[in-house]
Amino acid sequence: MSAMSCFSGLSAFPITPTSPGGQVDTQALRRLVGPPAEAGVDSIGLLGSTGTYAYLARSERRRALDAALDAVASRVPLLVGVGALRTDEAVRLAQDAKAAGAAAGLLAAMSYTPLTEDEVFAHVAAVAGESGLPLCLYDNPATTHFRFTPALVGRLARLPGIVAVKSPAPEASAVAAHHAALRAAVPDGFSIGYSGDWNAAEALLAGGAAWYGVAAGLFPEPCLRIAQAARAGDAAGARTENARLEPLWALFRAHSSLRIMYAAAEILGVCRAAPPRPILPVAEPVRGEVATVLRQLGLA
Amino acid sequence: MSAMSCFSGLSAFPITPTSPGGQVDTQALRRLVGPPAEAGVDSIGLLGSTGTYAYLARSERRRALDAALDAVASRVPLLVGVGALRTDEAVRLAQDAKAAGAAAGLLAAMSYTPLTEDEVFAHVAAVAGESGLPLCLYDNPATTHFRFTPALVGRLARLPGIVAVKSPAPEASAVAAHHAALRAAVPDGFSIGYSGDWNAAEALLAGGAAWYGVAAGLFPEPCLRIAQAARAGDAAGARTENARLEPLWALFRAHSSLRIMYAAAEILGVCRAAPPRPILPVAEPVRGEVATVLRQLGLA
Repeated sequence: MSAMSCFSGLSAFPITPTSPGGQVDTQALRRLVGPPAEAGVDSIGLLGSTGTYAYLARSERRRALDAALDAVASRVPLLVGVGALRTDEAVRLAQDAKAAGAAAGLLAAMSYTPLTEDEVFAHVAAVAGESGLPLCLYDNPATTHFRFTPALVGRLARLPGIVAVKSPAPEASAVAAHHAALRAAVPDGFSIGYSGDWNAAEALLAGGAAWYGVAAGLFPEPCLRIAQAARAGDAAGARTENARLEPLWALFRAHSSLRIMYAAAEILGVCRAAPPRPILPVAEPVRGEVATVLRQLGLA
Repeated sequence: MSAMSCFSGLSAFPITPTSPGGQVDTQALRRLVGPPAEAGVDSIGLLGSTGTYAYLARSERRRALDAALDAVASRVPLLVGVGALRTDEAVRLAQDAKAAGAAAGLLAAMSYTPLTEDEVFAHVAAVAGESGLPLCLYDNPATTHFRFTPALVGRLARLPGIVAVKSPAPEASAVAAHHAALRAAVPDGFSIGYSGDWNAAEALLAGGAAWYGVAAGLFPEPCLRIAQAARAGDAAGARTENARLEPLWALFRAHSSLRIMYAAAEILGVCRAAPPRPILPVAEPVRGEVATVLRQLGLA
């Protein structure tokens, strides 16, 4: 399965259901990754931030990866989060991903001590060089507290094996300039894709190659309609489809997409897992709002 | 050893020397914790942020703790970092600390997914309740990306076993208001102490009960002079002693106290450990500046 097919179109990022002690529920994970693969997403993004990679042991991350690869068979390529606070741990995770058969890795600049650009450069270079796994840089300052500048993305894009960036989509008024700055920094063929579901339609219309989507983990069809309209250059169509999902985006913005997706998975009867503590499930009134929104959108 | 003696006066926070693979060098750690204990600091703060607790496995944190407890014997109480991204892991670390004989634990609100106040409240309550270890709340937004409000500190201070807070000392013009806001939120007897070496003298003069000090890990004497002058109400003396160390504080602000302390430990011949990657040692010219400053201050 080609790595580059992970980096265009729609990638669906499911939650990773676990026990309270952090054991992955592989049966529930299979029920999560099968339907988006069947619906026609371009890749599955396993163990992203919503997939709580940061909270899971290496052995559990491997169990999740093996189960997901088996469940999707070779219908879609699998992109997997290999981030860790320590460089040596991230190297091992990328080696595991390569050995298991993932198409590519997603590498965030997780931090505790604030990191310099040179430190992140050396970290990414070590993971790419020691694993041989094609990598997507994962820029997510809201969780990692490190921001990849276009200049750093440009430096890293020249290393062998660094093939894409997943950037947080800014709001509509800023996305064109953001995309142009990244595009100017990287070689041709380097993929610039976006996370942040509520801003993704505009990011695709601005030229983004991929949407790394959280909602697509449970609701691939409406997300595919947005992505396909944007890819076809149908801006009005993409915006109309995106506007329909605004009640879901509002819940994501208010409570985080991670917490809302755990509630949605339970409402849909897919699994009853809670996020890893200290993260708590949303309170009962919010869960009620999620159920109402899913019903109104025809998603439950 | 009383927990409360960890929470007044000067607490020295050494680095934790490790191999590149993350194994604690217990012999070097003994050489680090002995001298401040001998010099008369009020407690040792093991496995703080400078002690790279966030980067070390549970088994290595236990090895460090056992070695440090043995090295200081019962000369000073030992406060130990028990923070972790997962609540169950922080509980286990606090149980380990209690079993090993630490006087108290230091609990940061480590985060990846941004946390709510209620999530941090439940996290801290679980660690205190399930371990029985007296706890100091560790407020360090620069690394954890969670800020303890005075209201949250006040709520937590009413739980059994939550006995102190380690707050980042704001600059001189803001410290009195900061201290008053915390004082108003907590019961009598709850200890309010400060980190941030370059602002610590003013924080002590404003009423802070403790200085959780990084420089004190290698340079206890000049830090003790500051702390003792402040405690005696000798503001001019405390400020004069503090001003002497300004060249060191400037290096801390420019490169982080952690990176500078690794360089200083090597310059002093205590150990040759590097910080855990992705954190890199300071570049050679900076190391030269550290050597010059230590010589000028009579510290090397």
